This record gives sequence, structure tokens and C-alpha cells, in this order.
Amino acid sequence: MNFLEERILKDGIVKEGNVLKVDSFLNHQMDVRLFDQIGEEFKRRFADEKINKILTIEASGIGIACIVARHFDVPVIFAKKSKSINIEGDVYVAEVESFTHKCKNQVIVSKKFLNPEDKVLIIDDFLANGCALQGLISIVKSAGAEVSGIGIAIEKGFQPGGQVIRNLGFHLESLAIVDSMDYTTGEIKFRENA
Amino acid sequence: MNFLEERILKDGIVKEGNVLKVDSFLNHQMDVRLFDQIGEEFKRRFADEKINKILTIEASGIGIACIVARHFDVPVIFAKKSKSINIEGDVYVAEVESFTHKCKNQVIVSKKFLNPEDKVLIIDDFLANGCALQGLISIVKSAGAEVSGIGIAIEKGFQPGGQVIRNLGFHLESLAIVDSMDYTTGEIKFRENA
Repeated sequence: MNFLEERILKDGIVKEGNVLKVDSFLNHQMDVRLFDQIGEEFKRRFADEKINKILTIEASGIGIACIVARHFDVPVIFAKKSKSINIEGDVYVAEVESFTHKCKNQVIVSKKFLNPEDKVLIIDDFLANGCALQGLISIVKSAGAEVSGIGIAIEKGFQPGGQVIRNLGFHLESLAIVDSMDYTTGEIKFRENA
Repeated sequence: MNFLEERILKDGIVKEGNVLKVDSFLNHQMDVRLFDQIGEEFKRRFADEKINKILTIEASGIGIACIVARHFDVPVIFAKKSKSINIEGDVYVAEVESFTHKCKNQVIVSKKFLNPEDKVLIIDDFLANGCALQGLISIVKSAGAEVSGIGIAIEKGFQPGGQVIRNLGFHLESLAIVDSMDYTTGEIKFRENA
């Protein structure tokens, strides 16, 4: 069992509807020391990739992405969920459906920050049905850039997102893959060797 | 002139309507090395405060807050802008009006992450009219906790937010205070000794 799985067992809470609450350390309150360990581990797992940029999506991906970026010494771009008046028209757009918020969003990245030479590591806190991730991949492709890796903190292995992405041949690393959860007992089962 | 002012002059773009675009290094693409310098500087300026928690607001405050948090070795909490189904009812709420997005939002922080013993450093990327900041202060007060400091990357000194907060006696440190901008010439004037 790795450091993140141990932390999930210690502080994660299983709720009805396959909700895993990790808001005490991952996506509301954020344990920056833990993020540093996550960064170190991704650096090890993606050691062979020539990554020059990290892409994530607001909001909860940003903290992890920034700390991970220190280990790669590269800038972070975060995809924005709605059109801000401060973003100009020249943007890459993808449609993203959120499981958590039950809504569709357009996510955008300004064209000037992604170009065909970029080797992009996509970082996010959660992977479930994979809609956010598909949107980010789509944006990287629109730029003609390369998805050199995808680093996820927690994958819900009982939802299809991760399998689809692996089937497509992407180098996806999830630090903890939850294969099942039971809110009546609080039990969480992880996939081995995640 | 400090490192942030120099960077604003180098890469910031002045737009009509008193908009300062710093999206190439601060709030869309994020220069994590720069954030590290910001963290070091805040650590110096708030050296006398016993800070045990950092509070920020999604989305663009999160990256800076996480890197700053490494210098204080404390966790970060980010206030969320809309009610997520993953947040339970037990939250502190404040109303925030956004200058950029021309809308009102409720921001919330789960009660379990702020308590009366906390000495909170509030971090954000921008301070203009101060609505977001007022909401964060209000949340800290609701928890009975103490605002030990407020660290802002860029303050628009020609808008009232910063003055109000200083008048109220808060220890506010803005690393760059823009006193005026001219979009026709691109000129940016900083307050001295910010």
C-alpha cells in the first residue's frame, strides 16, 4: 500500500452514491506535504518523458499541479471552466460534463499557451467517468501538442474513465485506484500495484 | 522595483477598462518558480505571525497559496464558489461579487477546517475592489479564528479594496501595487515601496 492509499484509508470517508470524501487533505483543505510526495512519485513514474508543461483544470487540480510542477521545473496551465471577460477569443475549447456538479461546462485554454512543440503532462485530483480528462486531452490535441503522460491522484476504478484512456494507449498513472467502496461499512478496496 | 513588478512590466499587458492581463505567468499559465519567490517574500513579511493555515479562493488563488504554503509548512484551504453536492451543510458562507465575471457568488468553507484556534494567512492573486477578500475575512471571523495576515500578489491601488482593508487595521501586504495604467501607451505605474 502506498502513501496515498494509506492516507485515503486514514482520512477518506465513503458516502452513499459512490462518493469518496477526501476534502480534509486533497480537494478543499489541501495537505501540501502530501502533494510534494505526489510530485516526487509522478516525477519517478514519468522519468522517461520529456515534459515541458503541465495542464490541469480548475479548481481542485490546480494545487496538486503546481506542487507537482516544482518536481518537473515546468509551468502549469489550468483550463478554465467558463468564459471570462479577461480571456480573448483565441482559445481552445472542449465540452466537459461534471459528475460532481451535474452540469456541462465548456473548458478553455488560451491558444498562446499551448503549441505543437509542447510535451504535456496532464494532472488532476480525480478520475471517474473521465469527462474532464477527455476535455483536456482534446485541448492538447487541438494545439497539435503531445500528451506525454497523465497523472491522477485517485481513480475510481469501478467507473469507465481510466480503462478508456488506457485502451487508447495513453500513459496514465493513478496513484490510488479504488476498485470498490461500501458506505455502510466504510470499506475501501484498492487495486493492487496501482 | 521588486521581482514581481519587474515581471509585470515584462509580461503584463494593459487592456482597456483597467484590465491588467498577467495570464502568461500568474492566473492562467502559472510560473511556479515565480510563485516560489512570492512564497519566500511572504514568509519574510509575515515572519512575526504565528500562521498555522492558509486560506484562499478558487480558482487562481490556489496555485499561489499552495506554493506559499510550502514556505510556512501549513495546509491550504480554498473557499469554493458554488455549493457542491460533495460539501455537507455545515459550512461558513459569504457573499462575493466578482469584478471580472460580473456576477455574485456565495463562497463556502466547510466548518471542520476552520476553528477558533486558527491563525490564518489569506492569500490571493489580485485585490481590486476587495469583495473576494471581504468574503474570506468574513469566513475567518465566522469561525472565531484570527486573520494574522493578508498576502496579495497584485493590488490595483486605484480601486478602494486595499485602502479599506488597511483602514480596518489588517496586516495587508501586496507585492505590487499598481497606482495607474494606461492602455493606450501600455504604461504601468507602481506605488513605491509596496
